[in-house]
Amino acid sequence: MTQVFNFSSGPAVLPPEVLRQVQAELLDWHGSGMSVMEMSHRGPEFGQILAEAEADLRTLLAIPANYKVLFLQGGAHLQFAMLPFNFAAADSTVDFVNTGHWSKVAIKEVSRYAKVNIAASSEDKNFSYVPDESTWQRSKDAAFLHYCSNETIGGVEFNFIPKSNGVPLICDMSSNILSRPVDVSQFGMIYAGAQKNMGPSGVAVSIVDEALLGKARSETPTMLNYKTFADNGSMYNTPPSFGIYVAGLVYKHVLAQGGLAAMEAKNIEKANVLYAAIDASSGFYHCPTALADRSRMNIPFTLADSKLDAEFLAGAEARHLLQLKGHRSVGGMRASIYNAMPLAGCQALADYMNEFARTKG
Amino acid sequence: MTQVFNFSSGPAVLPPEVLRQVQAELLDWHGSGMSVMEMSHRGPEFGQILAEAEADLRTLLAIPANYKVLFLQGGAHLQFAMLPFNFAAADSTVDFVNTGHWSKVAIKEVSRYAKVNIAASSEDKNFSYVPDESTWQRSKDAAFLHYCSNETIGGVEFNFIPKSNGVPLICDMSSNILSRPVDVSQFGMIYAGAQKNMGPSGVAVSIVDEALLGKARSETPTMLNYKTFADNGSMYNTPPSFGIYVAGLVYKHVLAQGGLAAMEAKNIEKANVLYAAIDASSGFYHCPTALADRSRMNIPFTLADSKLDAEFLAGAEARHLLQLKGHRSVGGMRASIYNAMPLAGCQALADYMNEFARTKG
Repeated sequence: MTQVFNFSSGPAVLPPEVLRQVQAELLDWHGSGMSVMEMSHRGPEFGQILAEAEADLRTLLAIPANYKVLFLQGGAHLQFAMLPFNFAAADSTVDFVNTGHWSKVAIKEVSRYAKVNIAASSEDKNFSYVPDESTWQRSKDAAFLHYCSNETIGGVEFNFIPKSNGVPLICDMSSNILSRPVDVSQFGMIYAGAQKNMGPSGVAVSIVDEALLGKARSETPTMLNYKTFADNGSMYNTPPSFGIYVAGLVYKHVLAQGGLAAMEAKNIEKANVLYAAIDASSGFYHCPTALADRSRMNIPFTLADSKLDAEFLAGAEARHLLQLKGHRSVGGMRASIYNAMPLAGCQALADYMNEFARTKG
Repeated sequence: MTQVFNFSSGPAVLPPEVLRQVQAELLDWHGSGMSVMEMSHRGPEFGQILAEAEADLRTLLAIPANYKVLFLQGGAHLQFAMLPFNFAAADSTVDFVNTGHWSKVAIKEVSRYAKVNIAASSEDKNFSYVPDESTWQRSKDAAFLHYCSNETIGGVEFNFIPKSNGVPLICDMSSNILSRPVDVSQFGMIYAGAQKNMGPSGVAVSIVDEALLGKARSETPTMLNYKTFADNGSMYNTPPSFGIYVAGLVYKHVLAQGGLAAMEAKNIEKANVLYAAIDASSGFYHCPTALADRSRMNIPFTLADSKLDAEFLAGAEARHLLQLKGHRSVGGMRASIYNAMPLAGCQALADYMNEFARTKG
């Protein structure tokens, strides 16, 4: 098969070791004679898969015992609606930090069900930075403060955890969960779609302080109530069992690689390779993100001469460097380099960027 | 690998040809160098997979052009809440036929958001039959009439489509969709979780008359509005792409086998093998379902002497006849024999049942 480097922003590259194990076990999981896709979710086989996935995720993130780990469906999008139903009364105010596309989608949905205060926004500079925490205008009795720790489109990543000030912090970590250690105890809830750093699409994870559960609005649909999943070990209804299985293998793989501190070191090294290629190009390439807030996961960059974009992309495709076209709101290119992107992929892209700049610059 | 026959009620057995193709393509889909799990859902590769899945499902069910085909998450359970938000005003009445567990779960959720009229119920006989349509007490201006075409626990299947009487029919076909031809044009909406006859869990399908869309309550969460999915070709957010891919392969497999008329003939033959074993046992085995309403998909049966249950199950396991324990509300055994269960599996179970009855009866 062709060796490609897949820079998709998600669904995204998965560890080849995990995919090979999935392939090997696809027809017959551990001698059961069944594919994981064919197993009753109430049987002992899937029970073991689910229990190990949760245990391994708890180990990776050092999740305190008073936090529930929930495996959900509907991606981050469904949770945008679940947030107010579960954590904010209709007359309450929710604080948001608006750092880009994913912040905005969450704000739009939550504002249909509660008052929203935009404590800070970087919209003035096309979402190219994280507003300094000292400037945030937080409301007095916010039901929670929400932010997105990594904006995949703008390539902006928080390098700090905001102060709680006694208000639950809720964070959409879809695109940088498991890429670095994080102190879960500082959050009311962390949630994430799986399809960047954890597995295939169709699985989402919530890690929620159990003290926040049980206060949902009376009109909350059963399937939008986190407590439904907490009370039933993520098995109120049939879970997305195959996706949970793959995510569980990813967790084991990350553990075997040394856990999140090791992932962080690799991710810093990988990102540096690409940012160095941009910064050394004498302006041929440009990254719009403020230096201090550059994402380790998603690296947007533009060419000074956008008429070369198509040629750049065609040359990249020819070298099996895939899915580099940037989002239309930023333009240019975007390299998404989640945990499973090897250093070799970043080096291959940097080599190509250097060569392209040399011949076209 | 061990040849097993897996009678799980869902997630359930899948066609071995489909699983082998998934395995062969797992690391590299059609020379793309990517697993389907790794593909951007916005890329041309997944675009093709989704388009073919929809087209093949349209062919299989002869879906009229004015029906939308939606691929969703959250299983049938999430749709229980979506039904009133999309199709019933708060002061309207919804008619239900209550034929068992899945009817009851839908009724419970819908009744939180609209008035519910139980037009008919078979609870008087532990949900062992379908009430005669002539006895149904339907309300005057129901927002819709809902029924479950096959109750997996009770093993009760509708062998007719109710009259519309100008009211949209909405049917939960989770456990018998694609098992027989059905006239889609008689329905307002058909919906189904994938994990019985279509693929892995984590995917649900709705087939909805587009005339019913666009009337959702104003407070409907974006992800609970069918129109969100209809307007965006099931791609408002990241879909469960791998599950849709597997379902698409199942659709192609069913087409290659001759479509739904061929499936129906096979399913009748398979079910007859097991019902014959029950009926010829002189009362050793008993099926609680009324003769006319016996399911072709889920066959519950009890042993006259329930003290033999454990021995029966142990003997079945030893013969690699798996997941036969019945639901606690019916007791005894249940054999789920969806499309992908081969006739040989039913024959192996019938042979074992005959032998067990002969030696223990």
